[in-house]
Amino acid sequence: MFSTAISPRVYETDAFGHINNTSVPGWFEKGREPLFRIFTPDLDIRKMPLILARMEVDFLAELHYGAEVELRGWIQKIGNSSVHVLQEAWQNGVCGARGVSVVIHFDHVQKRALPVPAEIRMQLEHHFLEK
Amino acid sequence: MFSTAISPRVYETDAFGHINNTSVPGWFEKGREPLFRIFTPDLDIRKMPLILARMEVDFLAELHYGAEVELRGWIQKIGNSSVHVLQEAWQNGVCGARGVSVVIHFDHVQKRALPVPAEIRMQLEHHFLEK
Amino acid sequence: MFSTAISPRVYETDAFGHINNTSVPGWFEKGREPLFRIFTPDLDIRKMPLILARMEVDFLAELHYGAEVELRGWIQKIGNSSVHVLQEAWQNGVCGARGVSVVIHFDHVQKRALPVPAEIRMQLEHHFLEK
Amino acid sequence: MFSTAISPRVYETDAFGHINNTSVPGWFEKGREPLFRIFTPDLDIRKMPLILARMEVDFLAELHYGAEVELRGWIQKIGNSSVHVLQEAWQNGVCGARGVSVVIHFDHVQKRALPVPAEIRMQLEHHFLEK
Repeated sequence: MFSTAISPRVYETDAFGHINNTSVPGWFEKGREPLFRIFTPDLDIRKMPLILARMEVDFLAELHYGAEVELRGWIQKIGNSSVHVLQEAWQNGVCGARGVSVVIHFDHVQKRALPVPAEIRMQLEHHFLEK
Repeated sequence: MFSTAISPRVYETDAFGHINNTSVPGWFEKGREPLFRIFTPDLDIRKMPLILARMEVDFLAELHYGAEVELRGWIQKIGNSSVHVLQEAWQNGVCGARGVSVVIHFDHVQKRALPVPAEIRMQLEHHFLEK
Repeated sequence: MFSTAISPRVYETDAFGHINNTSVPGWFEKGREPLFRIFTPDLDIRKMPLILARMEVDFLAELHYGAEVELRGWIQKIGNSSVHVLQEAWQNGVCGARGVSVVIHFDHVQKRALPVPAEIRMQLEHHFLEK
Repeated sequence: MFSTAISPRVYETDAFGHINNTSVPGWFEKGREPLFRIFTPDLDIRKMPLILARMEVDFLAELHYGAEVELRGWIQKIGNSSVHVLQEAWQNGVCGARGVSVVIHFDHVQKRALPVPAEIRMQLEHHFLEK
Protein backbone atom coordinates (compact mmCIF):
# COMPACT_ATOMS: atom_id res chain seq x y z
CA MET A 1 0.00 0.00 0.00
CA PHE A 2 1.09 3.55 -0.73
CA SER A 3 0.08 6.05 1.95
CA THR A 4 0.36 9.83 1.70
CA ALA A 5 -1.03 12.40 4.14
CA ILE A 6 -2.35 15.68 2.85
CA SER A 7 -4.01 18.59 4.55
CA PRO A 8 -7.05 20.00 2.73
CA ARG A 9 -6.88 23.64 1.67
CA VAL A 10 -9.58 26.29 2.08
CA TYR A 11 -9.72 26.89 -1.66
CA GLU A 12 -10.47 23.21 -2.21
CA THR A 13 -13.84 23.65 -0.49
CA ASP A 14 -16.85 25.00 -2.35
CA ALA A 15 -20.02 26.88 -1.50
CA PHE A 16 -21.68 23.65 -0.34
CA GLY A 17 -19.28 23.86 2.62
CA HIS A 18 -17.10 20.81 1.97
CA ILE A 19 -14.35 19.72 -0.41
CA ASN A 20 -15.36 20.16 -4.05
CA ASN A 21 -15.30 16.93 -6.04
CA THR A 22 -12.88 18.41 -8.59
CA SER A 23 -10.21 18.65 -5.85
CA VAL A 24 -10.08 14.88 -5.41
CA PRO A 25 -8.38 14.03 -8.73
CA GLY A 26 -5.60 16.42 -7.73
CA TRP A 27 -5.27 14.65 -4.38
CA PHE A 28 -5.18 11.29 -6.08
CA GLU A 29 -2.46 12.57 -8.42
CA LYS A 30 -0.41 13.42 -5.31
CA GLY A 31 -1.30 10.00 -3.87
CA ARG A 32 0.26 8.37 -6.95
CA GLU A 33 3.60 10.07 -6.30
CA PRO A 34 5.10 6.85 -4.81
CA LEU A 35 4.24 5.24 -8.16
CA PHE A 36 5.88 8.14 -10.02
CA ARG A 37 9.01 7.53 -7.91
CA ILE A 38 9.17 3.89 -8.99
CA PHE A 39 9.34 5.03 -12.61
CA THR A 40 11.41 8.18 -11.97
CA PRO A 41 13.29 7.97 -8.64
CA ASP A 42 14.37 11.64 -8.65
CA LEU A 43 10.83 12.81 -9.63
CA ASP A 44 12.30 14.87 -12.49
CA ILE A 45 9.09 15.64 -14.31
CA ARG A 46 10.89 16.11 -17.64
CA LYS A 47 11.81 12.42 -17.58
CA MET A 48 8.59 10.99 -16.15
CA PRO A 49 7.35 8.44 -18.70
CA LEU A 50 3.71 8.32 -17.65
CA ILE A 51 0.32 9.51 -18.83
CA LEU A 52 -3.11 9.06 -17.35
CA ALA A 53 -5.53 7.15 -19.58
CA ARG A 54 -8.55 7.00 -17.32
CA MET A 55 -9.83 7.98 -13.91
CA GLU A 56 -12.91 6.89 -12.03
CA VAL A 57 -13.93 8.33 -8.67
CA ASP A 58 -16.84 7.41 -6.42
CA PHE A 59 -17.70 10.08 -3.88
CA LEU A 60 -18.75 8.19 -0.77
CA ALA A 61 -18.89 10.79 2.00
CA GLU A 62 -18.28 14.50 2.49
CA LEU A 63 -14.65 15.50 2.94
CA HIS A 64 -13.93 18.65 4.92
CA TYR A 65 -11.40 21.36 5.55
CA GLY A 66 -9.70 21.18 8.94
CA ALA A 67 -8.59 17.54 9.31
CA GLU A 68 -5.85 15.56 7.58
CA VAL A 69 -6.64 13.17 4.77
CA GLU A 70 -4.80 9.91 4.22
CA LEU A 71 -4.49 8.89 0.59
CA ARG A 72 -4.16 5.12 0.29
CA GLY A 73 -3.22 3.42 -2.94
CA TRP A 74 -2.79 -0.11 -4.19
CA ILE A 75 -1.75 -1.59 -7.51
CA GLN A 76 -4.77 -3.46 -8.80
CA LYS A 77 -3.51 -4.78 -12.09
CA ILE A 78 -0.42 -4.48 -14.32
CA GLY A 79 -1.00 -4.85 -18.04
CA ASN A 80 1.53 -4.71 -20.83
CA SER A 81 1.86 -0.90 -20.65
CA SER A 82 -0.82 0.00 -18.12
CA VAL A 83 -0.97 0.10 -14.35
CA HIS A 84 -4.34 0.20 -12.58
CA VAL A 85 -4.16 2.03 -9.25
CA LEU A 86 -6.96 1.82 -6.68
CA GLN A 87 -7.02 4.88 -4.46
CA GLU A 88 -8.95 5.99 -1.39
CA ALA A 89 -9.16 9.24 0.58
CA TRP A 90 -9.74 8.69 4.30
CA GLN A 91 -10.60 11.42 6.80
CA ASN A 92 -11.58 10.92 10.45
CA GLY A 93 -11.97 7.18 9.92
CA VAL A 94 -14.29 7.53 6.92
CA CYS A 95 -13.48 6.74 3.30
CA GLY A 96 -14.75 9.82 1.47
CA ALA A 97 -13.68 8.92 -2.06
CA ARG A 98 -12.47 5.83 -3.84
CA GLY A 99 -11.25 5.61 -7.39
CA VAL A 100 -9.24 3.81 -9.99
CA SER A 101 -6.64 5.47 -12.21
CA VAL A 102 -5.16 3.84 -15.27
CA VAL A 103 -1.61 5.03 -15.82
CA ILE A 104 0.30 4.20 -19.02
CA HIS A 105 4.07 3.80 -19.34
CA PHE A 106 4.59 6.22 -22.20
CA ASP A 107 7.28 7.69 -24.43
CA HIS A 108 6.44 11.42 -24.58
CA VAL A 109 8.75 11.99 -27.57
CA GLN A 110 7.56 9.17 -29.78
CA LYS A 111 4.03 9.44 -28.35
CA ARG A 112 3.58 5.73 -27.86
CA ALA A 113 2.97 3.29 -25.02
CA LEU A 114 5.95 1.31 -23.69
CA PRO A 115 5.94 -2.08 -21.96
CA VAL A 116 6.31 -1.92 -18.17
CA PRO A 117 9.90 -3.13 -17.54
CA ALA A 118 10.33 -6.27 -15.42
CA GLU A 119 12.21 -4.56 -12.57
CA ILE A 120 9.50 -1.90 -12.26
CA ARG A 121 6.83 -4.57 -12.41
CA MET A 122 8.47 -6.26 -9.41
CA GLN A 123 8.50 -3.05 -7.40
CA LEU A 124 4.87 -2.38 -8.28
CA GLU A 125 3.89 -5.88 -7.16
CA HIS A 126 4.93 -4.99 -3.60
CA HIS A 127 1.93 -2.69 -3.57
CA PHE A 128 -0.62 -5.18 -4.83
CA LEU A 129 -3.96 -5.05 -3.11
CA GLU A 130 -3.89 -7.86 -0.57
CA LYS A 131 -6.67 -10.34 -0.83
CA MET B 1 -27.22 18.09 -26.27
CA PHE B 2 -25.73 20.72 -24.00
CA SER B 3 -22.86 22.67 -25.52
CA THR B 4 -20.56 25.06 -23.68
CA ALA B 5 -17.42 26.71 -25.05
CA ILE B 6 -14.48 27.30 -22.75
CA SER B 7 -11.04 28.68 -23.35
CA PRO B 8 -8.20 26.74 -21.66
CA ARG B 9 -6.07 28.64 -19.19
CA VAL B 10 -2.27 28.62 -18.94
CA TYR B 11 -2.40 27.34 -15.35
CA GLU B 12 -4.45 24.35 -16.54
CA THR B 13 -1.43 23.07 -18.45
CA ASP B 14 1.32 21.11 -16.74
CA ALA B 15 5.01 20.47 -17.27
CA PHE B 16 4.23 17.85 -19.93
CA GLY B 17 3.15 20.80 -22.10
CA HIS B 18 -0.57 20.13 -22.38
CA ILE B 19 -3.70 20.34 -20.23
CA ASN B 20 -3.29 18.44 -16.96
CA ASN B 21 -5.85 15.68 -16.52
CA THR B 22 -7.06 17.16 -13.22
CA SER B 23 -8.33 20.24 -15.11
CA VAL B 24 -10.88 18.19 -17.03
CA PRO B 25 -13.25 17.44 -14.11
CA GLY B 26 -13.48 21.20 -13.54
CA TRP B 27 -14.31 21.72 -17.22
CA PHE B 28 -16.95 19.02 -17.07
CA GLU B 29 -18.44 20.66 -13.97
CA LYS B 30 -18.78 23.86 -16.05
CA GLY B 31 -20.21 21.76 -18.91
CA ARG B 32 -22.97 20.53 -16.56
CA GLU B 33 -24.10 24.09 -15.87
CA PRO B 34 -27.08 23.75 -18.27
CA LEU B 35 -28.15 20.80 -16.10
CA PHE B 36 -27.68 22.90 -12.94
CA ARG B 37 -29.97 25.50 -14.54
CA ILE B 38 -32.74 22.94 -15.07
CA PHE B 39 -32.73 22.25 -11.32
CA THR B 40 -31.97 25.84 -10.23
CA PRO B 41 -32.89 28.36 -12.97
CA ASP B 42 -31.19 31.33 -11.27
CA LEU B 43 -28.04 29.26 -10.51
CA ASP B 44 -28.20 30.33 -6.85
CA ILE B 45 -25.70 27.89 -5.45
CA ARG B 46 -27.24 28.01 -1.98
CA LYS B 47 -30.39 26.39 -3.40
CA MET B 48 -28.78 23.94 -5.83
CA PRO B 49 -30.04 20.48 -4.80
CA LEU B 50 -27.33 18.40 -6.43
CA ILE B 51 -24.29 16.37 -5.47
CA LEU B 52 -21.87 14.38 -7.57
CA ALA B 53 -21.81 10.66 -6.77
CA ARG B 54 -19.35 9.48 -9.38
CA MET B 55 -17.17 10.63 -12.25
CA GLU B 56 -15.36 8.65 -14.92
CA VAL B 57 -13.09 10.25 -17.50
CA ASP B 58 -11.22 8.64 -20.38
CA PHE B 59 -8.36 10.75 -21.69
CA LEU B 60 -8.34 10.18 -25.44
CA ALA B 61 -6.02 12.82 -26.86
CA GLU B 62 -3.87 15.70 -25.66
CA LEU B 63 -5.73 18.95 -25.03
CA HIS B 64 -3.80 22.18 -25.38
CA TYR B 65 -3.69 25.81 -24.38
CA GLY B 66 -4.43 28.24 -27.20
CA ALA B 67 -7.62 26.90 -28.83
CA GLU B 68 -11.23 26.82 -27.64
CA VAL B 69 -12.75 23.66 -26.24
CA GLU B 70 -16.36 22.66 -26.78
CA LEU B 71 -17.89 20.76 -23.92
CA ARG B 72 -20.72 18.56 -25.16
CA GLY B 73 -23.11 16.82 -22.80
CA TRP B 74 -26.00 14.41 -23.07
CA ILE B 75 -28.32 12.84 -20.55
CA GLN B 76 -27.62 9.14 -20.68
CA LYS B 77 -30.00 7.80 -18.08
CA ILE B 78 -32.39 9.15 -15.44
CA GLY B 79 -32.85 7.00 -12.34
CA ASN B 80 -35.08 7.65 -9.36
CA SER B 81 -32.71 10.27 -7.90
CA SER B 82 -29.74 10.06 -10.23
CA VAL B 83 -28.92 11.58 -13.60
CA HIS B 84 -26.13 10.10 -15.72
CA VAL B 85 -24.46 12.72 -17.91
CA LEU B 86 -22.14 11.77 -20.77
CA GLN B 87 -19.65 14.54 -21.50
CA GLU B 88 -16.99 15.17 -24.11
CA ALA B 89 -14.32 17.83 -24.56
CA TRP B 90 -13.61 18.65 -28.21
CA GLN B 91 -10.73 20.77 -29.48
CA ASN B 92 -9.72 21.32 -33.10
CA GLY B 93 -12.06 18.54 -34.26
CA VAL B 94 -10.68 15.96 -31.83
CA CYS B 95 -12.42 14.51 -28.77
CA GLY B 96 -9.74 14.78 -26.09
CA ALA B 97 -11.73 13.50 -23.12
CA ARG B 98 -14.98 11.68 -22.58
CA GLY B 99 -16.62 10.91 -19.28
CA VAL B 100 -19.74 10.08 -17.37
CA SER B 101 -20.85 11.95 -14.27
CA VAL B 102 -23.56 10.68 -11.95
CA VAL B 103 -25.40 13.56 -10.34
CA ILE B 104 -27.87 13.02 -7.50
CA HIS B 105 -30.91 15.17 -6.74
CA PHE B 106 -30.15 15.83 -3.08
CA ASP B 107 -31.49 17.63 -0.03
CA HIS B 108 -28.40 19.28 1.51
CA VAL B 109 -30.19 19.94 4.82
CA GLN B 110 -31.62 16.49 5.42
CA LYS B 111 -28.64 14.87 3.66
CA ARG B 112 -30.73 12.51 1.59
CA ALA B 113 -31.45 11.79 -2.06
CA LEU B 114 -34.69 13.12 -3.55
CA PRO B 115 -36.66 11.75 -6.52
CA VAL B 116 -36.16 13.66 -9.76
CA PRO B 117 -39.45 15.60 -10.20
CA ALA B 118 -41.51 14.83 -13.31
CA GLU B 119 -41.21 18.32 -14.83
CA ILE B 120 -37.44 18.26 -14.48
CA ARG B 121 -37.33 14.76 -15.92
CA MET B 122 -39.14 16.07 -19.02
CA GLN B 123 -36.65 18.89 -19.48
CA LEU B 124 -33.74 16.50 -19.06
CA GLU B 125 -35.19 14.14 -21.66
CA HIS B 126 -34.74 16.87 -24.31
CA HIS B 127 -31.03 16.27 -23.89
CA PHE B 128 -31.08 12.50 -24.24
CA LEU B 129 -28.30 11.04 -26.31
CA GLU B 130 -29.78 10.41 -29.72
CA LYS B 131 -29.57 6.90 -30.95
CA MET C 1 -8.48 48.22 -22.86
CA PHE C 2 -8.49 44.44 -23.02
CA SER C 3 -11.83 42.85 -22.16
CA THR C 4 -12.46 39.14 -21.60
CA ALA C 5 -15.67 37.56 -20.32
CA ILE C 6 -15.46 34.50 -18.12
CA SER C 7 -18.08 32.49 -16.34
CA PRO C 8 -17.22 31.52 -12.74
CA ARG C 9 -17.07 27.81 -11.95
CA VAL C 10 -18.60 26.06 -8.93
CA TYR C 11 -15.19 24.77 -7.84
CA GLU C 12 -13.89 28.36 -7.74
CA THR C 13 -16.23 29.10 -4.81
CA ASP C 14 -15.30 28.17 -1.25
CA ALA C 15 -17.13 27.34 1.96
CA PHE C 16 -17.72 31.04 2.63
CA GLY C 17 -20.19 30.86 -0.29
CA HIS C 18 -18.43 33.09 -2.83
CA ILE C 19 -15.41 32.97 -5.13
CA ASN C 20 -12.23 32.06 -3.26
CA ASN C 21 -9.53 34.71 -3.52
CA THR C 22 -7.04 32.22 -4.97
CA SER C 23 -9.26 31.88 -8.08
CA VAL C 24 -8.73 35.50 -9.04
CA PRO C 25 -5.04 35.24 -10.09
CA GLY C 26 -6.12 32.48 -12.50
CA TRP C 27 -8.81 34.73 -13.90
CA PHE C 28 -6.35 37.58 -14.30
CA GLU C 29 -3.95 35.22 -16.10
CA LYS C 30 -6.79 34.52 -18.58
CA GLY C 31 -7.47 38.28 -18.74
CA ARG C 32 -3.86 38.84 -19.87
CA GLU C 33 -4.32 36.54 -22.85
CA PRO C 34 -4.71 39.50 -25.26
CA LEU C 35 -1.27 40.59 -24.03
CA PHE C 36 0.09 37.05 -24.58
CA ARG C 37 -1.24 37.28 -28.16
CA ILE C 38 0.69 40.48 -28.80
CA PHE C 39 3.92 38.65 -27.93
CA THR C 40 2.89 35.28 -29.40
CA PRO C 41 0.10 35.68 -31.99
CA ASP C 42 -0.62 31.93 -32.28
CA LEU C 43 -0.58 31.49 -28.47
CA ASP C 44 1.90 28.61 -28.81
CA ILE C 45 2.90 28.31 -25.19
CA ARG C 46 6.28 26.75 -26.06
CA LYS C 47 7.27 30.04 -27.70
CA MET C 48 5.70 32.48 -25.22
CA PRO C 49 8.57 34.70 -23.98
CA LEU C 50 6.96 35.92 -20.77
CA ILE C 51 7.19 35.37 -17.04
CA LEU C 52 5.30 36.94 -14.17
CA ALA C 53 7.48 38.90 -11.76
CA ARG C 54 4.82 40.23 -9.41
CA MET C 55 1.11 40.31 -8.75
CA GLU C 56 -0.96 42.48 -6.45
CA VAL C 57 -4.68 42.03 -5.96
CA ASP C 58 -7.11 44.05 -3.87
CA PHE C 59 -10.34 42.22 -3.08
CA LEU C 60 -13.03 44.90 -3.16
CA ALA C 61 -16.33 43.03 -3.12
CA GLU C 62 -17.59 39.45 -3.08
CA LEU C 63 -17.65 37.72 -6.44
CA HIS C 64 -20.18 34.94 -6.95
CA TYR C 65 -21.00 31.87 -8.95
CA GLY C 66 -23.90 32.31 -11.36
CA ALA C 67 -23.17 35.55 -13.23
CA GLU C 68 -20.56 36.42 -15.85
CA VAL C 69 -17.43 38.33 -14.95
CA GLU C 70 -15.78 40.85 -17.23
CA LEU C 71 -12.02 41.02 -16.93
CA ARG C 72 -10.76 44.44 -17.94
CA GLY C 73 -7.10 45.18 -18.44
CA TRP C 74 -4.96 48.18 -19.28
CA ILE C 75 -1.27 48.69 -19.83
CA GLN C 76 -0.09 50.93 -17.04
CA LYS C 77 3.59 51.22 -17.76
CA ILE C 78 6.17 49.75 -20.14
CA GLY C 79 9.72 49.49 -18.82
CA ASN C 80 12.78 48.18 -20.60
CA SER C 81 11.74 44.52 -20.18
CA SER C 82 8.65 44.82 -18.01
CA VAL C 83 4.99 45.53 -18.69
CA HIS C 84 2.70 46.60 -15.86
CA VAL C 85 -0.90 45.50 -16.42
CA LEU C 86 -3.78 46.89 -14.37
CA GLN C 87 -6.67 44.44 -14.20
CA GLU C 88 -10.19 44.47 -12.81
CA ALA C 89 -12.89 41.83 -12.39
CA TRP C 90 -16.43 43.24 -12.79
CA GLN C 91 -19.64 41.35 -11.99
CA ASN C 92 -23.15 42.78 -11.96
CA GLY C 93 -21.80 46.34 -12.22
CA VAL C 94 -19.43 45.97 -9.29
CA CYS C 95 -15.63 45.80 -9.39
CA GLY C 96 -14.87 42.83 -7.15
CA ALA C 97 -11.10 42.71 -7.56
CA ARG C 98 -8.41 44.99 -8.93
CA GLY C 99 -4.77 44.18 -9.35
CA VAL C 100 -1.49 44.91 -11.04
CA SER C 101 0.65 42.24 -12.68
CA VAL C 102 4.22 42.82 -13.74
CA VAL C 103 5.09 40.71 -16.76
CA ILE C 104 8.67 40.38 -18.03
CA HIS C 105 9.74 39.78 -21.64
CA PHE C 106 11.95 36.77 -21.01
CA ASP C 107 14.17 34.29 -22.78
CA HIS C 108 13.28 30.93 -21.22
CA VAL C 109 16.38 29.23 -22.63
CA GLN C 110 18.97 31.76 -21.55
CA LYS C 111 16.94 32.64 -18.43
CA ARG C 112 17.29 36.37 -18.87
CA ALA C 113 15.07 39.39 -19.42
CA LEU C 114 14.80 40.81 -22.94
CA PRO C 115 13.97 44.38 -24.00
CA VAL C 116 10.39 44.90 -25.18
CA PRO C 117 10.70 45.27 -28.98
CA ALA C 118 9.53 48.56 -30.51
CA GLU C 119 6.71 47.04 -32.60
CA ILE C 120 5.29 45.26 -29.55
CA ARG C 121 5.62 48.42 -27.51
CA MET C 122 3.46 50.20 -30.08
CA GLN C 123 0.76 47.55 -29.91
CA LEU C 124 0.81 47.65 -26.12
CA GLU C 125 0.43 51.43 -26.13
CA HIS C 126 -3.01 51.03 -27.74
CA HIS C 127 -4.13 49.59 -24.44
CA PHE C 128 -2.77 52.33 -22.21
CA LEU C 129 -5.01 53.37 -19.39
CA GLU C 130 -6.77 56.53 -20.55
CA LYS C 131 -6.37 59.49 -18.31
CA MET D 1 7.40 32.51 12.62
CA PHE D 2 4.85 30.12 11.21
CA SER D 3 6.32 27.25 9.21
CA THR D 4 4.40 24.78 7.08
CA ALA D 5 5.83 22.18 4.72
CA ILE D 6 4.01 21.35 1.52
CA SER D 7 4.84 19.09 -1.35
CA PRO D 8 4.19 20.56 -4.83
CA ARG D 9 1.73 18.71 -7.03
CA VAL D 10 2.15 17.87 -10.71
CA TYR D 11 -0.98 19.82 -11.66
CA GLU D 12 0.53 22.93 -10.03
CA THR D 13 3.21 23.01 -12.74
CA ASP D 14 2.53 24.54 -16.15
CA ALA D 15 3.83 24.13 -19.67
CA PHE D 16 6.88 26.27 -18.85
CA GLY D 17 8.02 23.30 -16.75
CA HIS D 18 7.83 24.81 -13.26
CA ILE D 19 5.17 25.81 -10.72
CA ASN D 20 2.59 28.15 -12.22
CA ASN D 21 2.41 31.49 -10.43
CA THR D 22 -1.31 31.05 -9.73
CA SER D 23 -0.49 28.07 -7.47
CA VAL D 24 1.41 30.25 -5.02
CA PRO D 25 -1.59 32.13 -3.55
CA GLY D 26 -3.11 28.72 -2.72
CA TRP D 27 0.11 27.70 -1.00
CA PHE D 28 0.18 30.95 0.95
CA GLU D 29 -3.43 30.36 2.01
CA LYS D 30 -2.29 27.00 3.44
CA GLY D 31 0.70 28.78 5.01
CA ARG D 32 -1.72 31.08 6.87
CA GLU D 33 -3.45 28.13 8.52
CA PRO D 34 -1.59 28.70 11.83
CA LEU D 35 -3.12 32.20 11.77
CA PHE D 36 -6.57 30.71 11.04
CA ARG D 37 -6.08 28.48 14.10
CA ILE D 38 -5.44 31.48 16.33
CA PHE D 39 -8.82 32.89 15.35
CA THR D 40 -10.62 29.50 15.11
CA PRO D 41 -8.79 26.80 17.08
CA ASP D 42 -10.84 23.90 15.68
CA LEU D 43 -10.50 25.24 12.09
CA ASP D 44 -14.30 25.01 11.64
CA ILE D 45 -14.60 26.98 8.45
CA ARG D 46 -18.21 27.94 9.16
CA LYS D 47 -17.00 29.96 12.15
CA MET D 48 -13.80 31.40 10.69
CA PRO D 49 -14.14 35.20 10.98
CA LEU D 50 -11.61 36.21 8.34
CA ILE D 51 -11.50 37.57 4.82
CA LEU D 52 -8.60 38.45 2.58
CA ALA D 53 -8.42 42.12 1.59
CA ARG D 54 -5.23 42.12 -0.40
CA MET D 55 -2.39 39.93 -1.61
CA GLU D 56 0.97 40.82 -3.12
CA VAL D 57 3.42 38.24 -4.39
CA ASP D 58 6.90 38.72 -5.84
CA PHE D 59 8.12 35.75 -7.85
CA LEU D 60 11.84 35.55 -7.14
CA ALA D 61 12.95 32.19 -8.51
CA GLU D 62 11.45 29.17 -10.25
CA LEU D 63 9.75 26.68 -7.97
CA HIS D 64 9.61 23.05 -9.11
CA TYR D 65 7.80 19.79 -8.72
CA GLY D 66 9.75 17.10 -6.87
CA ALA D 67 11.10 18.82 -3.73
CA GLU D 68 9.36 20.02 -0.58
CA VAL D 69 8.53 23.67 -0.06
CA GLU D 70 8.66 25.39 3.30
CA LEU D 71 6.13 28.16 3.73
CA ARG D 72 7.36 30.69 6.27
CA GLY D 73 5.13 33.40 7.67
CA TRP D 74 5.47 36.34 10.02
CA ILE D 75 3.05 38.90 11.34
CA GLN D 76 4.20 42.22 9.97
CA LYS D 77 1.61 44.58 11.38
CA ILE D 78 -1.64 44.42 13.35
CA GLY D 79 -4.14 47.20 12.66
CA ASN D 80 -7.53 47.72 14.24
CA SER D 81 -9.16 44.94 12.19
CA SER D 82 -6.37 43.95 9.83
CA VAL D 83 -3.38 41.64 10.11
CA HIS D 84 -0.52 41.94 7.62
CA VAL D 85 1.22 38.61 7.04
CA LEU D 86 4.59 38.37 5.29
CA GLN D 87 5.05 34.99 3.63
CA GLU D 88 7.85 33.22 1.80
CA ALA D 89 8.09 29.94 -0.12
CA TRP D 90 11.50 28.26 0.20
CA GLN D 91 12.67 25.28 -1.84
CA ASN D 92 16.18 23.79 -1.87
CA GLY D 93 17.54 26.76 0.05
CA VAL D 94 16.11 29.36 -2.33
CA CYS D 95 13.25 31.77 -1.64
CA GLY D 96 11.08 31.40 -4.74
CA ALA D 97 8.22 33.70 -3.77
CA ARG D 98 7.60 36.33 -1.15
CA GLY D 99 4.35 38.12 -0.48
CA VAL D 100 2.18 40.06 1.89
CA SER D 101 -1.43 39.18 2.64
CA VAL D 102 -3.79 41.50 4.42
CA VAL D 103 -6.36 39.54 6.41
CA ILE D 104 -9.37 41.23 8.03
CA HIS D 105 -11.18 40.07 11.18
CA PHE D 106 -14.68 40.00 9.77
CA ASP D 107 -18.25 39.23 10.71
CA HIS D 108 -19.59 37.22 7.75
CA VAL D 109 -23.23 37.69 8.85
CA GLN D 110 -23.20 41.42 9.38
CA LYS D 111 -20.60 41.89 6.61
CA ARG D 112 -18.41 44.22 8.60
CA ALA D 113 -14.88 44.36 9.97
CA LEU D 114 -14.35 43.59 13.65
CA PRO D 115 -11.53 44.78 15.92
CA VAL D 116 -8.81 42.21 16.57
CA PRO D 117 -9.44 41.08 20.20
CA ALA D 118 -6.63 41.68 22.73
CA GLU D 119 -5.98 37.99 23.46
CA ILE D 120 -5.67 37.19 19.76
CA ARG D 121 -3.41 40.20 19.30
CA MET D 122 -1.10 38.79 21.96
CA GLN D 123 -0.90 35.42 20.27
CA LEU D 124 -0.22 37.07 16.91
CA GLU D 125 2.59 39.12 18.41
CA HIS D 126 4.51 35.90 19.09
CA HIS D 127 4.91 35.63 15.35
CA PHE D 128 6.17 39.16 14.73
CA LEU D 129 8.97 39.45 12.24
CA GLU D 130 12.13 39.73 14.31
CA LYS D 131 14.24 42.73 13.63
